[in-house]
Amino acid sequence: ATSRIAVIAGDGIGPEVIEPAIQVVDAVIRKFGGGTLEWNRLPWSSAYYKQTGHIVPSDGWETLAKHDAILLGAVGSPDVPETVTVHGLLLPMRRKFDQYVNLRPAYLYDGVPSPLKNKAPGSIDMIVYRENTEGEYAPVGGRLYEGTAADIAIQTAVFTRRGCERIIRAAFEAARKRPRKKLTSITKSNALPFGMVLWDDVFNSVKKEYPDVQAGSLLVDAAAMDFVRKPEVFDVVVASNLFGDILTDLSAMVTGSVGLASSANINPERTFPSMFEPVHGSAPDIAGKGIANPLAAILSTALMLDHLTMTAAADAIRAAVAAVLKEGKVMSPDLGGTASTTQVAEAVMAAI
Amino acid sequence: ATSRIAVIAGDGIGPEVIEPAIQVVDAVIRKFGGGTLEWNRLPWSSAYYKQTGHIVPSDGWETLAKHDAILLGAVGSPDVPETVTVHGLLLPMRRKFDQYVNLRPAYLYDGVPSPLKNKAPGSIDMIVYRENTEGEYAPVGGRLYEGTAADIAIQTAVFTRRGCERIIRAAFEAARKRPRKKLTSITKSNALPFGMVLWDDVFNSVKKEYPDVQAGSLLVDAAAMDFVRKPEVFDVVVASNLFGDILTDLSAMVTGSVGLASSANINPERTFPSMFEPVHGSAPDIAGKGIANPLAAILSTALMLDHLTMTAAADAIRAAVAAVLKEGKVMSPDLGGTASTTQVAEAVMAAI
Ligand SMILES: CC(C)[C@H](C(=O)O)[C@@H](O)C(=O)O
Ligand SMILES: CC(C)[C@H](C(=O)O)[C@@H](O)C(=O)O
Repeated sequence: ATSRIAVIAGDGIGPEVIEPAIQVVDAVIRKFGGGTLEWNRLPWSSAYYKQTGHIVPSDGWETLAKHDAILLGAVGSPDVPETVTVHGLLLPMRRKFDQYVNLRPAYLYDGVPSPLKNKAPGSIDMIVYRENTEGEYAPVGGRLYEGTAADIAIQTAVFTRRGCERIIRAAFEAARKRPRKKLTSITKSNALPFGMVLWDDVFNSVKKEYPDVQAGSLLVDAAAMDFVRKPEVFDVVVASNLFGDILTDLSAMVTGSVGLASSANINPERTFPSMFEPVHGSAPDIAGKGIANPLAAILSTALMLDHLTMTAAADAIRAAVAAVLKEGKVMSPDLGGTASTTQVAEAVMAAI
Repeated sequence: ATSRIAVIAGDGIGPEVIEPAIQVVDAVIRKFGGGTLEWNRLPWSSAYYKQTGHIVPSDGWETLAKHDAILLGAVGSPDVPETVTVHGLLLPMRRKFDQYVNLRPAYLYDGVPSPLKNKAPGSIDMIVYRENTEGEYAPVGGRLYEGTAADIAIQTAVFTRRGCERIIRAAFEAARKRPRKKLTSITKSNALPFGMVLWDDVFNSVKKEYPDVQAGSLLVDAAAMDFVRKPEVFDVVVASNLFGDILTDLSAMVTGSVGLASSANINPERTFPSMFEPVHGSAPDIAGKGIANPLAAILSTALMLDHLTMTAAADAIRAAVAAVLKEGKVMSPDLGGTASTTQVAEAVMAAI
């Protein structure tokens, strides 16, 4: 079977990491098979916006909907407002395609130094299930008396039982399949008595259906501490949109670098294409230098292959990345090395 | 002059750390003078609530208002709802007494191990100015169709220009007085286009009045990473209520332990009493064992003495704490030692 992949390389280091990632996938499929992929490159980016006045063409969402998956580099540029990049492309995509499960694994690979003391390879091994369509990121709110002394803005988080239940249930299902069978729900219901209390209510009710999962709640502030103090205690973590955003940058950091952090924005019903992207952004500061770490993008393609049930190919990519990191000879600057983007991608292809 | 201090020791380890902290203050004043304090102990706590049906008596806020400062241990108990402890005492106090500046210093003391690699004593030295009266903690929101499939909750963050401006201005003033003169504003305006955009607007306009301060904005997710990756770059940090909550637990952790984290909830106009409390909670898991670290409470009294302009006494407490930590002989379990609460407090008194 052929799967059609829409590629939005985007801005900054986006294209620099996406092209090598595509090469890695092509290489792994040549070797392991399991299906064929057709890459359909879409030029949507800040540069495209500056030329055309829109970042997604009028039939863009329809075009995307015809694909089996979307591979995204990064969008964001210092000279283009976030209303265009983030609110015109990234966040609407997560919502329009109902990609309500944002999966973000964090694993301390052998060979990768953690900024934390005394963490053995493999000791940190968690996956965060971030809610991706509502909560704090609901596009709800407004502003009054802008620019005057009476200026006021309200930003409204919207939590629905349906929205909480589907991500929490997905996290319980994931926890059930992992050896430790542990799930931590992130809350702040002590201070936020509406949205987070609903979140807790749903967690506590779904929990009853999963007596085999060791499930508990943790305040987001305590979780931030524990991600540093004892990240090894976490297995599956489920969090709201904003808390998931903050905690996954932390989980990336304690496992070495955001340069290794992959993510999947999944529509489990497969009504719409799911989207795969590195957690890092367009990184204008290092763009154009050819030194961006492609491993986050490469590991994101492995999540894409998982979703396309090309499991052997996905596992082969992860094994090759682990081998390159363990050898430690070809490391990007963010991991303390001097290797270029191309050199890292080539090392992964050689390891396949 | 005599200052009247209301003491709300509260729940769990609250009383265990507050009584030794009071002894330390009395000892330091005997030696350094600068004023006298009158301690007025108020029994408000979860136990008091269970006896009386309220956590603050009907004339309680009036009683508090007659004091020059409030020293608080911790409130929170597994068997009392947070609507009572957090929403009946702690958060209303911050709002009613317009304690809009929540100061939280984080310093890596000599002798205290950081969970991070390669951090020299003194290399981490930041102070977070957390907004304390509005933002995400505004008691605004509601719930509809509770318990049904249609269940929905909204939680509304309210940001006002006045509210943002006064905390941001306080942070700029603080930055101006510190050697590095650096201020980082925490934002998430890329995803939260109402509240956080107002926050940024105010920050950018106040910034113009402080050309001597090196001022910049940082996304909260990137800040969480940088608090782990390179906490030494931070000097003064200004953050909204929720972001300040999360980041100050992180800053406490990277400087060794929440057992050292002090805080001041300041009403700069002195219309109302300011409140001083350790960042840690009531810690039911270790309550009653006599092993809680009293240093966060003791350092909070130093912030109180600063506020009462008893500077020599405040500095003497900080110096004594630093000396005890540097010696490293009398350390609480959270810092890897075996000393009891009393032993730590006695060591501080001996060092004074
Ligand atoms: C107890 C809780 C409501 C409180 C807060 O979130 O402000 C605490 O975490 C703090 O940091 O003082
Ligand atoms: C770019 C930004 C809006 C986005 C988010 O906050 O979701 C990013 O930080 C992420 O984690 O994917």
